[in-house]
Amino acid sequence: MDLLDVSFDVGNRKIMALLVQKYGGTSVGTAERIEAVADRVYKHKQQGDDIVVVVSAMSGETNRLIELAKSINASPSAREMDVLLSTGEQVTIALLSMALMKRGLDARSYTGSQIRITTDNAHGKARIQKIDTEAMQADLDAGRVVVAAGFQGADEFGNITTLGRGGSDTTGVALAAALKADECQIYTDVDGVYTTDPRVVDSARRLDKITFEEMLEMASLGSKVLQIRAVEFAGKYQVPLRVLSSFVEGEGTLITTEGSKGMEQPAVSGIAFNRDEAKLTLKGVPDIPGIASRILGPISDANIEVDMIVQNVSVDGTTDFTFTVHRNEYDQALATLNSIAKELGAVAVLSDAKIAKVSIVGVGMRSHAGVASSMFRALAAESINIQLISTSEIKVSVIIDEKYMELAVRALHSAFKLSDTAPGVREA
Amino acid sequence: MDLLDVSFDVGNRKIMALLVQKYGGTSVGTAERIEAVADRVYKHKQQGDDIVVVVSAMSGETNRLIELAKSINASPSAREMDVLLSTGEQVTIALLSMALMKRGLDARSYTGSQIRITTDNAHGKARIQKIDTEAMQADLDAGRVVVAAGFQGADEFGNITTLGRGGSDTTGVALAAALKADECQIYTDVDGVYTTDPRVVDSARRLDKITFEEMLEMASLGSKVLQIRAVEFAGKYQVPLRVLSSFVEGEGTLITTEGSKGMEQPAVSGIAFNRDEAKLTLKGVPDIPGIASRILGPISDANIEVDMIVQNVSVDGTTDFTFTVHRNEYDQALATLNSIAKELGAVAVLSDAKIAKVSIVGVGMRSHAGVASSMFRALAAESINIQLISTSEIKVSVIIDEKYMELAVRALHSAFKLSDTAPGVREA
Repeated sequence: MDLLDVSFDVGNRKIMALLVQKYGGTSVGTAERIEAVADRVYKHKQQGDDIVVVVSAMSGETNRLIELAKSINASPSAREMDVLLSTGEQVTIALLSMALMKRGLDARSYTGSQIRITTDNAHGKARIQKIDTEAMQADLDAGRVVVAAGFQGADEFGNITTLGRGGSDTTGVALAAALKADECQIYTDVDGVYTTDPRVVDSARRLDKITFEEMLEMASLGSKVLQIRAVEFAGKYQVPLRVLSSFVEGEGTLITTEGSKGMEQPAVSGIAFNRDEAKLTLKGVPDIPGIASRILGPISDANIEVDMIVQNVSVDGTTDFTFTVHRNEYDQALATLNSIAKELGAVAVLSDAKIAKVSIVGVGMRSHAGVASSMFRALAAESINIQLISTSEIKVSVIIDEKYMELAVRALHSAFKLSDTAPGVREA
Repeated sequence: MDLLDVSFDVGNRKIMALLVQKYGGTSVGTAERIEAVADRVYKHKQQGDDIVVVVSAMSGETNRLIELAKSINASPSAREMDVLLSTGEQVTIALLSMALMKRGLDARSYTGSQIRITTDNAHGKARIQKIDTEAMQADLDAGRVVVAAGFQGADEFGNITTLGRGGSDTTGVALAAALKADECQIYTDVDGVYTTDPRVVDSARRLDKITFEEMLEMASLGSKVLQIRAVEFAGKYQVPLRVLSSFVEGEGTLITTEGSKGMEQPAVSGIAFNRDEAKLTLKGVPDIPGIASRILGPISDANIEVDMIVQNVSVDGTTDFTFTVHRNEYDQALATLNSIAKELGAVAVLSDAKIAKVSIVGVGMRSHAGVASSMFRALAAESINIQLISTSEIKVSVIIDEKYMELAVRALHSAFKLSDTAPGVREA
């Protein structure tokens, strides 16, 4: 049986599956690649599955349109940007439908407006409110392949909206939820979710399964395979989500509510990392109620997003307050902090942009004691100093000197036995 | 007063006009040209006019999309072609709206679906059935410029349709009719309708006014300034139509129900010509009922369109049957004719692709006797032999040897005194 065939055997009768397959911009970047997508859809259709395909704009097209807009108006209206950008997917749905028809399949394209993906009116970052499945369901019942434009919808007045960049994943999951699909398959240029970045650890292993919570932690920490919103959405509506490669056959990674199978649930599923952050500390501020908001208020007013926040117990009535921001916003955050340090009575402002965040992620941590201390021990064995620690139920993150990042990731990957143990695979 | 300002003076109060302005692909072909269109709209808006702008796809874009489709499917579905091609104008409406907003105008773009231009479902050549003006009117009342996508609509089920190439003119006229606009202005790369092609006759003169009927005859005979359907539509709904240049200031040509002003209506308004045709004759067929349909039936079955049809009185029970077709379809028409000649009892099949059609057009002909004979006299004076003659109420067409075409056009232009008589203009 094809590993990708998710149809079910019930007694002697094979029940076919309803699959929503989403293909990103790289997967539909040229006429040839669109043909390859059509071949894949054809194969699934021949296996008896019902298919809804969600596509992005051809790679490069969105940037071309943005350039065109910027050449005319440096700050174009959000409404008109959506009118402009939504043409990108509209081109792809038409072309893919043509490619499917060439293969003898009946296919029909839908823009976001035509499906009636109703969103709020937040142009450029709209949220889906309602999906009308009637027309699509009728097409599926008639044996047609439905080809839907990702990333777009329309508000209640028919104004075209977009869900923001990468929003095609969200469209895929939302359609899968609305149609009660058996699986939402996200085809991308990687063949699944890995225990860590294979460019850092040679023996990084593709995970067969991962939970929604783990995926959220992995994604937000830098394993940029899927859009966070799509994963949240899939988790909320319990849509089984699979990440696969458009270019290489394989079963990818299934993101689901259940954890990995097997006798023993591993404590840690993956190692995430990120060197895009910078660390700022207000040293020796008075430990009084409201001090946190007096520090972070001006940062938030400057539209700077804060990631980790750490405040330790106070000594002699003063405390050190540390947080991290994206490195792009480091200069602005530092200037803001310097301007408020005196009035807050801080002793000093410390800052460091040469840091990295390394995290271990796994739902197994919940039932395994000592995971954090194993992590710290592994780092200590490599003489890596930990500058900050932050924990949640399913992850432990540390901030370390940037130059030790790869070393830390490899050490942790090995310590938690994440490597592929198949013979011939080299351990880093 | 600006010659283009069609606002009216009623007593002391100036009543502003509602103008529908249509800009073709060349006029919006680059970001710079879109800015120029925005400048022009801004000027009219400052004069107090209400403006609805209808735009085509940027020049080259439609061909690019067609190439893309053909590279995937040699005979793409008409429905999906419409989904694909309609993105062309959608890009333009967004960009023009952005350009207008940069100038401080309030503007709002509309796709064909959003306006609710309801059409039949003849994809690629749909006909407009209904236009919903409510939203556009509300925008106009609020002082907004409405920017509408030409060429497109949607059927009653929301499927995107297109009106066929050049259909943006039709959109412009249809919107003008629905909104009861004071004028529909078609901006193009020529500055009006001429008495004949200025490339053939140096002294060809721009007409200030021309009737819808004359324009139809001029357009179908080769003065390809406006889409025939748009002119028909404008005539039917009595929408004053003006052809102007996007690039040169001027008052263009007004196409209207009234003829030219002045003491005397000239007999002939213009000279049209066409060298795209070929002539075929079945010689000596029996002059019996049904013979015409037995000849043209197979031609029509082969999807060949016939232009002129001439059959003279019979001599000895046989007649000669002649018709013209587009030169591209000459070979096929000739083959068809050869295959049926014998069974029809024809003596011979004669054919000639080296012909030209020259026509004089004018509503004035109705009230002027002897216009046809003046035409024949002028051609005879140049020793040009007339091969075929066909007449309608407002035109006389002749078929002549291709090599005399320019000579014939110049002779007729001069004979009917169409040249600009302003000093310094050279008579050909």
